[in-house]
Amino acid sequence: MKLSGIAASSGIAIGPAWVIEQLDEAALPASIDAAAVDGEKKRLEEAVAASIADLSGLRDRMAAEGRTNETEIFEGHLLLLEDEELIGRAQELVSNERRPAAAAIAAARDEIAAMFESLDDEYLRERAADIRDVCGRVLGQLTGRTGVPSSVSGGPVVLVTADLTPSDTAQLNKSAVAGFVTMIGGRTSHSAIIARASGFPAIVGMGRELDSIKNGQLLIVNGSTGELFIDPDAALAEEYRAKQQALEARREKLGALLEAKSVSADGVHVELVANIGSPDDAAGARAAGAEGVGLFRTEFLYMGRDTLPSEEDQFAAYVRAAEAFKPGAPLVIRTMDIGGDKELPLLDLPKEDNPFLGYRAIRISLDRHDLFKTQLRAILRASAHGNVKVMFPMIATLAEFRAAKALLLECREELIAEGVAVGDNVEVGIMIEVPGAAMMADRFAREVDFFSIGTNDLTQYTMAADRMNEKLTALGDPMQPAVLRLIERVIRAAEAEGKWVGMCGEMAGQPHAVPLLLGLGLQEFSMSANAVLEARALIRQLSKQEMAALAAEALDLDSPQAIRELVEARVPAVRGL
Amino acid sequence: MKLSGIAASSGIAIGPAWVIEQLDEAALPASIDAAAVDGEKKRLEEAVAASIADLSGLRDRMAAEGRTNETEIFEGHLLLLEDEELIGRAQELVSNERRPAAAAIAAARDEIAAMFESLDDEYLRERAADIRDVCGRVLGQLTGRTGVPSSVSGGPVVLVTADLTPSDTAQLNKSAVAGFVTMIGGRTSHSAIIARASGFPAIVGMGRELDSIKNGQLLIVNGSTGELFIDPDAALAEEYRAKQQALEARREKLGALLEAKSVSADGVHVELVANIGSPDDAAGARAAGAEGVGLFRTEFLYMGRDTLPSEEDQFAAYVRAAEAFKPGAPLVIRTMDIGGDKELPLLDLPKEDNPFLGYRAIRISLDRHDLFKTQLRAILRASAHGNVKVMFPMIATLAEFRAAKALLLECREELIAEGVAVGDNVEVGIMIEVPGAAMMADRFAREVDFFSIGTNDLTQYTMAADRMNEKLTALGDPMQPAVLRLIERVIRAAEAEGKWVGMCGEMAGQPHAVPLLLGLGLQEFSMSANAVLEARALIRQLSKQEMAALAAEALDLDSPQAIRELVEARVPAVRGL
Repeated sequence: MKLSGIAASSGIAIGPAWVIEQLDEAALPASIDAAAVDGEKKRLEEAVAASIADLSGLRDRMAAEGRTNETEIFEGHLLLLEDEELIGRAQELVSNERRPAAAAIAAARDEIAAMFESLDDEYLRERAADIRDVCGRVLGQLTGRTGVPSSVSGGPVVLVTADLTPSDTAQLNKSAVAGFVTMIGGRTSHSAIIARASGFPAIVGMGRELDSIKNGQLLIVNGSTGELFIDPDAALAEEYRAKQQALEARREKLGALLEAKSVSADGVHVELVANIGSPDDAAGARAAGAEGVGLFRTEFLYMGRDTLPSEEDQFAAYVRAAEAFKPGAPLVIRTMDIGGDKELPLLDLPKEDNPFLGYRAIRISLDRHDLFKTQLRAILRASAHGNVKVMFPMIATLAEFRAAKALLLECREELIAEGVAVGDNVEVGIMIEVPGAAMMADRFAREVDFFSIGTNDLTQYTMAADRMNEKLTALGDPMQPAVLRLIERVIRAAEAEGKWVGMCGEMAGQPHAVPLLLGLGLQEFSMSANAVLEARALIRQLSKQEMAALAAEALDLDSPQAIRELVEARVPAVRGL
Repeated sequence: MKLSGIAASSGIAIGPAWVIEQLDEAALPASIDAAAVDGEKKRLEEAVAASIADLSGLRDRMAAEGRTNETEIFEGHLLLLEDEELIGRAQELVSNERRPAAAAIAAARDEIAAMFESLDDEYLRERAADIRDVCGRVLGQLTGRTGVPSSVSGGPVVLVTADLTPSDTAQLNKSAVAGFVTMIGGRTSHSAIIARASGFPAIVGMGRELDSIKNGQLLIVNGSTGELFIDPDAALAEEYRAKQQALEARREKLGALLEAKSVSADGVHVELVANIGSPDDAAGARAAGAEGVGLFRTEFLYMGRDTLPSEEDQFAAYVRAAEAFKPGAPLVIRTMDIGGDKELPLLDLPKEDNPFLGYRAIRISLDRHDLFKTQLRAILRASAHGNVKVMFPMIATLAEFRAAKALLLECREELIAEGVAVGDNVEVGIMIEVPGAAMMADRFAREVDFFSIGTNDLTQYTMAADRMNEKLTALGDPMQPAVLRLIERVIRAAEAEGKWVGMCGEMAGQPHAVPLLLGLGLQEFSMSANAVLEARALIRQLSKQEMAALAAEALDLDSPQAIRELVEARVPAVRGL
């Protein structure tokens, strides 16, 4: 059988299905016989012990990889399992009320979490989420429900799940997981971004049809086309194993371009850099051929923790990212983009009807000087240790940019007065992701040092189509001519003022888009690290002058399909990609 | 005391506060003494009788005004109150379980509504909402909680409420209500639109500060500035009574322009037309000086009813609207724009994370040919009875327009084959409210007959700011230069192909915007009917040629404030408006 979804991360994964099921707690038995009590108590103890063993392993692995956030999270979970209040309460419910172990841990979880949730102290309130998380792990042990496996026998599996949370993705490892498929999400959902950054083939937004998949069924994930084969016959499996090998061979061949220049056939240099979400990603990005970082998504420093990151924490993270590259390599740090689809309970933001059109990113930063200045100070301090550039997200008006830049200069003066080292000539740029900013690019270009076009958001606003909404995938295509026209407008406006333009949306790494973007005059392409070498290989074959003519023709077409066909006709190399 | 909110509908209202409170049902007593049972039974009977009397009055009034939808709704509510199942169950709960009357009706409501909600039949499921509505009315009688009053002693009141629902607004009448203030909503929320259409001064989005207002406190609503005065002193009250009279005098003076031409001082004719939501609004719009209809929001024909409106229903509604005007007056019918902030339970649409960026308007119509073709047939049939034009909402791509137009032509051929009369040369246009459509206006202009710019949505997408989000009011300003630049682009594109451009967003009636829009070359201004005469008076003073120069200057400014100041400097007449 074949199902289709949104091609989220390219590559082919073949392996048995590992279905992460949701437990129907309401169906657990309410009570057990007196004779069964001792057995259930023992089962509960064993499940707790197994959970502790899992968590210790995870914590050690995260610590060894220098992932301090995750290490602290798992450390906190371990403390909860060793706490009498929680596990003791569950034991009590088994002994005194004859609940089965699973129902007891679920009830203890609800009681204790509710208690925390009723407290005034924000820090303590947020412990409720950890309690739910860790009890979920124990429940999984008891009911045989599976989370993300850390190791499996019989080779890596294909995960089948509703969605992967950030904490799930922290546990993905290639010896156990070949790839994954999810019911919900779009090309730019968290799961999809992580899949591309870590090189897991993945399909997202497959819908409820995934319900039919059983554990152990052989699956083939084609992350490039969005096709999922269930129980393929031997011939098909063989065909895909061959394709997998060909991809591997291609990857090896591209390896020769690791140190090559990103230069077009007619001698125009561009910069191929990576989007990263944490300093841990930087070394991998460099190893994948990136010449620096075009987008450091700093919001991930704020997420999955109990307190806001301090100036020191952030400074250390930024310096670590800078030092992963050659001296002088660019590191564009985007100030935090919380809101939209990225929630941060710490900030206690109101629930919104349309979060993508809501209070997010720079809109929050400009209201929260405490938060914003801490981040700006950390970035400025890091600028003494590398070629750091500051970028503001979601800028819609000149007034916003001026207010943000004034705060940056204020921080700079404070640091200098304190005798702290800051870099000279730190470039200050903005994301172009709000259509209004693209329309005013000529005015912005007089005041900024650079633009970086965020095509994911720019497309969803330009086409008025939520990029996470599966019904609107066709509208969310950045190859829509309206989006290309806005991109051209931005590049021309920057050229007129001698400023540079980059792109850090998903489009920058898409083979069909690269020829057009080169032709339009884009100077910096920032993408998932695993797309860098393919883009370099492509650009080295292209003449910028020819691509400029191609782009001009494309801007006069009226659909993404027509534009893709034109690109394929002129640049046959993109066809297979 | 003075509070501020969003100026939603101009004019001044002065009157005692009438606070519509939310009932805290959890605080109702759970049981009563046996001795009290008979008294509570009697109270329940009386409350039901009073509710029946209210509803009969409402039904009769709606019927007399020809408002068939509302008449049917109230008729249904009356039947429910005469039904033994619901009221009998409440009586039983008082007699057998000694519940107080209010708790009994609440419990009966929840039981019966839950029963309906569990049914498979969609029609019956939706009866649950009617049950909740009608029981809310009885509860109000029992607890003294107030809904929208139909008549009051001591002169009209100022309503103070969280928000007004469409069914609340159906009950507003000027002898009882002077104006209203709400906690939530923005300038383009349903309540605000209704307020302007019906001429009630209103302030919306005032937040929780309204909680402090007590019933009977004297309030002054300045709907033009968004100021609300609570317990003003005698001097202030006198000042506002004088302002109210001056406004009244101004209104009378404007009356002289009722039959005047909408022509600029240098002889350029434009069309001043109205936005309407039902055929009932058409006569009022004509009486207010509108030359026709620039936007018939047909989604209101679909809302607040149990079944989809038939072709006959719609045909009758469209013809009625056309016949309210002089023969030949334009009637632009927009196909239904369900979705976004307008829900339609009948369609059973999925809940979305960002409904404004979701599955709405033409996106639904193109999937639901049954629905869409019924509407297109009704519009085409009406075109034999007036100067009817068809307009498609939320068009983002040429492919969407072509698909919609193909269906229209298909319906036309079917009707002709059936021997049914249809108009010749029915113009077909699109709303420009998606930024992508504005960017592609040159391509659309080759294929459409006209554009109508929907500035409410165009602004929220261009600035990526939900127009209902109170935190983002400044970004949602259509005077943002980015929005003006898109408007200019659209008008130039249409001019190049000889097509006309109108505007049906709120901006078209705003005094500061009118000079700019005239200067940019807008040909049709569609607005709330009560803004037509003021706009006509203004346009008759302006030179289009001078306004063209003004607009060119405005497009080079960088903020709405700067643009407003420029307009005030050149057109001092707008200052007081």
